[in-house]
Amino acid sequence: MPVLRYDVTTNDWVIMAPERVRRLVEPERVIGAEGLPPGPEGLFPFCPRNEHRTTPDIHAVRPGGRATGPGWKVRVVPSKFPALRIEEDPSRQEEGPLFRSLGGCGAHEVIIESPAHNTFLGHQSIEQIELVLRVLQARFNDLMRDARFQMIVLFKNHGEGAGTSLRHPHWQLIATPVVPRQLRLRHAIATDYFDRTGHCLYCVLLQEELAAGKRVLAANDSYAAVLPYASHVPFETWIIPKIHQSSFGRVEGARLRPLAELLRTVLLKLHVGLDNPDFNLTVNTVPRGDEDREYFLWHIALLPRLTTPAGFERGSGMSINTVMPEDAADALRDVPIP
Amino acid sequence: MPVLRYDVTTNDWVIMAPERVRRLVEPERVIGAEGLPPGPEGLFPFCPRNEHRTTPDIHAVRPGGRATGPGWKVRVVPSKFPALRIEEDPSRQEEGPLFRSLGGCGAHEVIIESPAHNTFLGHQSIEQIELVLRVLQARFNDLMRDARFQMIVLFKNHGEGAGTSLRHPHWQLIATPVVPRQLRLRHAIATDYFDRTGHCLYCVLLQEELAAGKRVLAANDSYAAVLPYASHVPFETWIIPKIHQSSFGRVEGARLRPLAELLRTVLLKLHVGLDNPDFNLTVNTVPRGDEDREYFLWHIALLPRLTTPAGFERGSGMSINTVMPEDAADALRDVPIP
Repeated sequence: MPVLRYDVTTNDWVIMAPERVRRLVEPERVIGAEGLPPGPEGLFPFCPRNEHRTTPDIHAVRPGGRATGPGWKVRVVPSKFPALRIEEDPSRQEEGPLFRSLGGCGAHEVIIESPAHNTFLGHQSIEQIELVLRVLQARFNDLMRDARFQMIVLFKNHGEGAGTSLRHPHWQLIATPVVPRQLRLRHAIATDYFDRTGHCLYCVLLQEELAAGKRVLAANDSYAAVLPYASHVPFETWIIPKIHQSSFGRVEGARLRPLAELLRTVLLKLHVGLDNPDFNLTVNTVPRGDEDREYFLWHIALLPRLTTPAGFERGSGMSINTVMPEDAADALRDVPIP
Repeated sequence: MPVLRYDVTTNDWVIMAPERVRRLVEPERVIGAEGLPPGPEGLFPFCPRNEHRTTPDIHAVRPGGRATGPGWKVRVVPSKFPALRIEEDPSRQEEGPLFRSLGGCGAHEVIIESPAHNTFLGHQSIEQIELVLRVLQARFNDLMRDARFQMIVLFKNHGEGAGTSLRHPHWQLIATPVVPRQLRLRHAIATDYFDRTGHCLYCVLLQEELAAGKRVLAANDSYAAVLPYASHVPFETWIIPKIHQSSFGRVEGARLRPLAELLRTVLLKLHVGLDNPDFNLTVNTVPRGDEDREYFLWHIALLPRLTTPAGFERGSGMSINTVMPEDAADALRDVPIP
């Protein structure tokens, strides 16, 4: 059973999920276990015709109208090795004056982005990417109805170096019973800026980046892709809405199509330009209750893993970025994509 | 030339060090370049008899009394690919309302911990480990005389997965012209605790851990090795002084020997118990000016890299730890060491 423990030296809650170790200690076996051994036709865990052997769907898009089995375009299942579980009790316990814990209550879902085992998201059709975004948003909003969840983190890991243990392309979603301290800090900084200036910090930052121009990779009417001035890692790329919106859950349906278009462009630029780099992608948004507040602008951060943070970064929290974002943007702009 | 840029969304300074990319893009070549190609006798960059081909010593311990060349026991050289440089000007520049930079002023030194190319620190003699600690402290105190440096981060990367690009065993030290935001936060939390209770948070935490007992790995009269209650990663181990001392630079000479002893024990326990895991080790201490303040207790944090932080951790700042520290401590206590 997962549990959270409070770190009194940093004010972080740490998720303790010992069951997840099985996934890491014996990755091959577990890849087998999650999808079971590849079947006679080379089927893997998340492949169509293997549905009956994984956990039941939470949600699926099946144009044919079937309720189970193959024929789906996007499918959501609970994680088999959840970091947090919906059944746990989110109450605090004191185990000593400085030892505080909290039941590992939350949700951990896997969004299978395609029936195809080996397709990169950037190689999918715009329609399929839009469908993935629509399902992510539906799961986000559905889980936000559970008042025990304070925050939902949507993310995608691409490549083994980015922490993937299953190759079939998927996103993940973790709903947490607390707002992570790092996000609280970002929100507090943006709130302070809003209180001082009356503007959303991220909207102003986007205007500044668009005016400077040299770190803008691509844009359409609704979104811009920018390699931020103070990028923490080489080729870090943000996709930022041009119209203010605090929460990913509130993005209008009609704005998911241009988002899919720009996301596809960015993914392809990175894929071709950097030879299929490992990366993490996260959706940054506001916690429960702040959906109508103006201080924050939801956005996607795409974080390639081209370098390894080491002792300095872990000991200081500071990043060392070895590629100027202007140079990275220049290089990516020149990359021809299909 | 390195430069720092301020991230207005997180209040972090990010080090931009594009020259360091050479070290990463062509690691083999650079390993060759830093040590030059292994010589006819298989010499590597930091091996004895190669001294004339690396940057000159900043400091060296040579019992024979020679000023240069081989015969040293510990040797300090500037990094060939520095994250920060002593020649830069630490003044702030405004490049736009939200774009602020700072010259990449600092120091980046490499402490070669042994003449032997392939010796693990835990396999060194107590005397040699003590000597390394003494040299680290000497460099720390020497650099702290430069009033431009606000903080010194001492660290060691072991293994490729921990970000090492050179195998010859070494530590590193980076002096920064700003206090990293994450450390400011830790210090602020501890200061607040001190203001409220009159006690050092870390001293109280150590007392609580010693009283609980189950996460204590080993101890001597001066230090304890503990796997903290809210460990962020599996087998995270702290070496904490039993006597209050804010700064690593102020540790009495006589207390380096018991530190070397306990460090060796912890290194060997991890090395044997986890089959030579990659790890980062950092020395946590106070910034310039706080050496005589009581809120903080300097300590060593040893962070094995058994798992890969992925999109959730990067998007939220929260850690998922898959091994309970009690279980990790139990396992390590049972490991027989030479």
